[in-house]
Amino acid sequence: MTKPFIQDLVNDMTLDEKLAQLTQLGPYYWGLDDTVDLTGPFKELNIKPQVMENIGSVLNGIGARNVIELQTRHLESSRQKIPLLFMADVIHGYRTILPIPLAMGSSFDLEAIERFAEVAAIESAAAGIHVTFSPMTDLVRDPRWGRVMETSGEDPYLNARVTESMVRGYQGTDLREPGRIAACVKHFAGYGAPEGGREYNTVDMSAGVLREFYLPAYKAAVDAGVAMVMAAFNTIDRIPASGNSKLLRGILREEWGFDGVTIADFNSVNELVPHGAAQDGREAAQKSLAAGLDIEMMSTHYLNHGAALVEEGLLDISLIDEAVTRVLELKDALGLFDNPFKDADPAADEADKPSAEHLQAARELGASSVVLLKNDNEVLPLKRGMKIGLAGPFATSINVLGGWAGAEKDPAVSLYTGITGKIPAADIVTAMTGELGSMLEGVFDVEDAAEEAFEQLKDCDVILAAVGENQHDTGEGGSKASLRLSANQEKLIRRLKDTGKPVITIVFSGRPLELAPVLDASDALVQAWFLGSESGNSIADVLFGDYNPSGRLSMSFPYSVGQIPVYYNAYQTGRPYDPQYPNVRYVTRYLDIPNDPLFCFGYGLSYSSFAYSSFNVEAAADGRVLASIAVENTSDVTGKETVQLYIRDVTASVVRPVKELKGFKQVTLVAHEKQVVTFEITREMLMFYGQDDELVFEPGDFDIMIGRNSGDHATQRIWIG
Amino acid sequence: MTKPFIQDLVNDMTLDEKLAQLTQLGPYYWGLDDTVDLTGPFKELNIKPQVMENIGSVLNGIGARNVIELQTRHLESSRQKIPLLFMADVIHGYRTILPIPLAMGSSFDLEAIERFAEVAAIESAAAGIHVTFSPMTDLVRDPRWGRVMETSGEDPYLNARVTESMVRGYQGTDLREPGRIAACVKHFAGYGAPEGGREYNTVDMSAGVLREFYLPAYKAAVDAGVAMVMAAFNTIDRIPASGNSKLLRGILREEWGFDGVTIADFNSVNELVPHGAAQDGREAAQKSLAAGLDIEMMSTHYLNHGAALVEEGLLDISLIDEAVTRVLELKDALGLFDNPFKDADPAADEADKPSAEHLQAARELGASSVVLLKNDNEVLPLKRGMKIGLAGPFATSINVLGGWAGAEKDPAVSLYTGITGKIPAADIVTAMTGELGSMLEGVFDVEDAAEEAFEQLKDCDVILAAVGENQHDTGEGGSKASLRLSANQEKLIRRLKDTGKPVITIVFSGRPLELAPVLDASDALVQAWFLGSESGNSIADVLFGDYNPSGRLSMSFPYSVGQIPVYYNAYQTGRPYDPQYPNVRYVTRYLDIPNDPLFCFGYGLSYSSFAYSSFNVEAAADGRVLASIAVENTSDVTGKETVQLYIRDVTASVVRPVKELKGFKQVTLVAHEKQVVTFEITREMLMFYGQDDELVFEPGDFDIMIGRNSGDHATQRIWIG
Repeated sequence: MTKPFIQDLVNDMTLDEKLAQLTQLGPYYWGLDDTVDLTGPFKELNIKPQVMENIGSVLNGIGARNVIELQTRHLESSRQKIPLLFMADVIHGYRTILPIPLAMGSSFDLEAIERFAEVAAIESAAAGIHVTFSPMTDLVRDPRWGRVMETSGEDPYLNARVTESMVRGYQGTDLREPGRIAACVKHFAGYGAPEGGREYNTVDMSAGVLREFYLPAYKAAVDAGVAMVMAAFNTIDRIPASGNSKLLRGILREEWGFDGVTIADFNSVNELVPHGAAQDGREAAQKSLAAGLDIEMMSTHYLNHGAALVEEGLLDISLIDEAVTRVLELKDALGLFDNPFKDADPAADEADKPSAEHLQAARELGASSVVLLKNDNEVLPLKRGMKIGLAGPFATSINVLGGWAGAEKDPAVSLYTGITGKIPAADIVTAMTGELGSMLEGVFDVEDAAEEAFEQLKDCDVILAAVGENQHDTGEGGSKASLRLSANQEKLIRRLKDTGKPVITIVFSGRPLELAPVLDASDALVQAWFLGSESGNSIADVLFGDYNPSGRLSMSFPYSVGQIPVYYNAYQTGRPYDPQYPNVRYVTRYLDIPNDPLFCFGYGLSYSSFAYSSFNVEAAADGRVLASIAVENTSDVTGKETVQLYIRDVTASVVRPVKELKGFKQVTLVAHEKQVVTFEITREMLMFYGQDDELVFEPGDFDIMIGRNSGDHATQRIWIG
Repeated sequence: MTKPFIQDLVNDMTLDEKLAQLTQLGPYYWGLDDTVDLTGPFKELNIKPQVMENIGSVLNGIGARNVIELQTRHLESSRQKIPLLFMADVIHGYRTILPIPLAMGSSFDLEAIERFAEVAAIESAAAGIHVTFSPMTDLVRDPRWGRVMETSGEDPYLNARVTESMVRGYQGTDLREPGRIAACVKHFAGYGAPEGGREYNTVDMSAGVLREFYLPAYKAAVDAGVAMVMAAFNTIDRIPASGNSKLLRGILREEWGFDGVTIADFNSVNELVPHGAAQDGREAAQKSLAAGLDIEMMSTHYLNHGAALVEEGLLDISLIDEAVTRVLELKDALGLFDNPFKDADPAADEADKPSAEHLQAARELGASSVVLLKNDNEVLPLKRGMKIGLAGPFATSINVLGGWAGAEKDPAVSLYTGITGKIPAADIVTAMTGELGSMLEGVFDVEDAAEEAFEQLKDCDVILAAVGENQHDTGEGGSKASLRLSANQEKLIRRLKDTGKPVITIVFSGRPLELAPVLDASDALVQAWFLGSESGNSIADVLFGDYNPSGRLSMSFPYSVGQIPVYYNAYQTGRPYDPQYPNVRYVTRYLDIPNDPLFCFGYGLSYSSFAYSSFNVEAAADGRVLASIAVENTSDVTGKETVQLYIRDVTASVVRPVKELKGFKQVTLVAHEKQVVTFEITREMLMFYGQDDELVFEPGDFDIMIGRNSGDHATQRIWIG
């Protein structure tokens, strides 16, 4: 039920006022500098001052002081005194920068992820932000796409759980509470599947694949009460999401019952025109409003054409009223009619540093996001007292916050600085560092490096090679066709290996890179992502064993770019590859590389070792099906294992994936501790979208798999009716 | 209307006899050697002799003599005396091997393609073959897939025209005529889109994409009267094609009116089980028969379970009767009830050589399939009297027939042999040749080659580098994740370039390879595919200008494997890349490579040069829209140009491709001749599948484009209502 005061406001509004309420513009239009990177075409829109008085929302964080000033001015000048909504891209923290979402997903730690969102919400709220365009929960299978760094990976189940946790972390139970902001899940729908991994490219998939892989995480956000949903840039069924009625009305509102606000992506209403889905801005406005898209972002076709469309009978005024009502309800839910400044707090916002508590949360989540990929001869953890060589472009770099790094006021802790927190600087030998730009671009040739640089490192007990990709090669507009380290860096690792000392390669990246070329030359391999403010401290915690690594890949690492897309939950084929007969030609395989990725979903090592035993699947007396397994820490150090449950529906009316993650549990085991981990196999886990796009359960055989990752688990088959 | 004698036969048959009639087995089961490569799992099926007496058809060519013997035995032993149907994979010729289909498609010469099929039909018919599993008209966008070599490429329009021509060439107007065989179009549907280019992998696409890109060529075959349709291995909408009722009954029979025979692919009925679409062979048989799949190939679930399925009411006997009737009708259409041996002719089949006429057809089509990709400083054509260096693994190789090369009795003409047909052997210097295996595999290292090998070549006027991929790396089961030439070959080309002499790189491949790494080191680049029996002669004709190259790529050549899929008829996006602003980040692009392929669809050079002028698009007085352009041969040599018409529907109810080929005309112009080429823009060209999967026409603006290839053309916009 709409509150009477909101109904009254809507009734009192002119049509032009309503259309302005549905428009979002950047602070530039209010005469403020827009210092945030604009991710789309920017135009002078020639908006008259009287229109500005009625605009509904502001794009981008501008700081608490500006928010207060702008809101104050706005409330003075606007007729109805409807407060502005301030929205921004707070992707992985605002002041305290946390790990990029792909890294965070690899923690598999839902409590820490909820805390991640809380930290971001508290700091954003203090900066006057009311809505964050997060979580981005697009399922991804193509690391060429730069925005894989903004999602939690390739799995619908993990993405859904991460998304729920983030929505809870941002929103809490009441948006009015201090330190809470509204979440906006994005990008609805399927934006994570641009063809060729090329940003903004066509998305195409069957209705079944959309339903079973891509939609679940958005739905999880809706079920968790997310306040807003952002429409994607891409097409679904050849119709741009921002004008796609089946998607925005049919699935989102009618089927899922979403009653919050929908918003365009940057300029996406206007982009119906270059898409060829609307012949001009007028038709774009008509299609988007008819499709149920409430707020137009950074274009003004609602404003300029909405009234004429209503007058000519091409658009029902009730559609506009509904949209305006939802926007006002969100403002009310945030308490803005009572306190239009909400938590805006210039003192807190402008503090010298983020809080120690927030930085600690970032450091901990950073450490648990690191994934140990290889550790031959237990070269890790490093021992204090060792002489440690440190080389490579990321050795001393502070450019490791990761893209979309909030306010970006504070530099990240470099790896070097992190290590100096563990051992005396005198025990660290640096060489060939700080060549970030040149070594990444290939301007600097490792072959030309002075021999003495390598000589220096020969005296070390171990050499760390800090390599990776430029953080701005990831994120929006960061698509790349090659996923290899620069030739210089690959050479560097080989040259370091030639010293005869153990080489530990530490990879900084926003996506799975192609690491096969450096695997043999690396005694250990550490996936360090971009971990935000505390990057170097988090990594050092792992390197020195102060944190026993527990990260598990949330996205497959391809063997080579020619293997893309590679992901664990592929459909069963008619001619599966059987590793027992590797030379059979007429099965699904490549002639030149394996089918398996280099590192699979769910994979990650620990300094502990875990043994699995006593796997048992059975129907209990009460009819519940229970799967249990014993996990034992067979090492002398405490460690955290992520026990993963996968299920395969052996035969069904439509082809099912070879396996699907349906649950996971993290257990921390002290040395030689053994625990039994039990999952209930629920009916819900076994349901899928059938031929008619309806959720169905079909009795039959199911393979129940529990183990350490998607490629290493025990399997039992059971009939469930 | 079914002929009475066929109806009588069906009425007279036992259920077991019917099921055997719907079964196809290899000659092994009749005690004959099966010398052809088996492309699927082979099993002893333990079939009883009395069942063999009723089997309906035989898989694979076994030669005229064996066919006559087997047919004779069969007619003696079988109760109803229904002749066997002999079917085989005659993909690009039987004795005379013609260019692989991807090459043939690049000729854009529909008459020559029809002749190609006639040649194959005559020789196959003489070998006792009644049906060829050709044309394969699967649309392809991923050169990692080995079977791109068997199709005519990435374009639905070209594929449809090629397919019609092939059906006509095989079938003529009456299958009873001598030298005619039945065609079987394959693989219905969408087999050309396996994910990751990995053979037999999942296929997934929206219904709209299936309809507008993938289905048209199969439909063209049906409209051209193709006798048979083969179901694909892959799934469509998560249901394997061989058990997919919507596809085989809904689209193929009900919508398109196909009344011929459908057949499984090798073992594909059985593969419903590993797909997880049927729990056992019994369910597989039930699903496939219910879906309308007439003949089961190389598995025996119809035979073993059909009777029980009918008895238990799980399958209507009428479905089986329909299928049997269609099989018998095909046998009748081929005249087998009157002459069960048809054209089987041991003398012709076992002749020492294919006919000179057929070889000439292969040579001509081979020359017109070669695509000249680069020709700096008119280094080509070669002049007689020149001293010519010849290096590389394909210089003297006869292993260039291409995969699926029919009876493969005769070796191909090597490049060296072809060149000796043009100039004295004394004028040819060969070096570093014949290393086919080792140079392709990297066993042999070019760096280690004796310096004298390069010294020898320095005396030449020009050096030919004959490089490529092993022909068996293409075709079924030939998926590759890397599309680069072997490192050895790339090195070879660079070393040859270092001699200072012009280098002409000639590429032998069954797919678009990644040629960017050798582009700069090659003064000229010739795509020579695998051209079959006359390979070396066809290439020599082009190299020496006895044939002025006219081939145009039927598939885009990617810039790198990380660009895949790349094809010219992509959908319009909301943020198109504008080459005028190459550094704008937030448009659809890669950071590290261009969006455009290295060589685009329709591209190819000539020794002539052609100028386009006077482009005009207008509505004629009679309402027809005509587009015309003048093409002038501005060179001194006669040449053939392929004038290409592309159309873009600027705005529509669903997003349309940036351009679509809608016509082409080949014109041969003598030196300085000018011709006006005119296309009528028909309503049919402007129709597309709308949101409800129905063909629609929508008035509006259309961009009409005519030019030399998909990337180089003039454009005019016109409103058509």
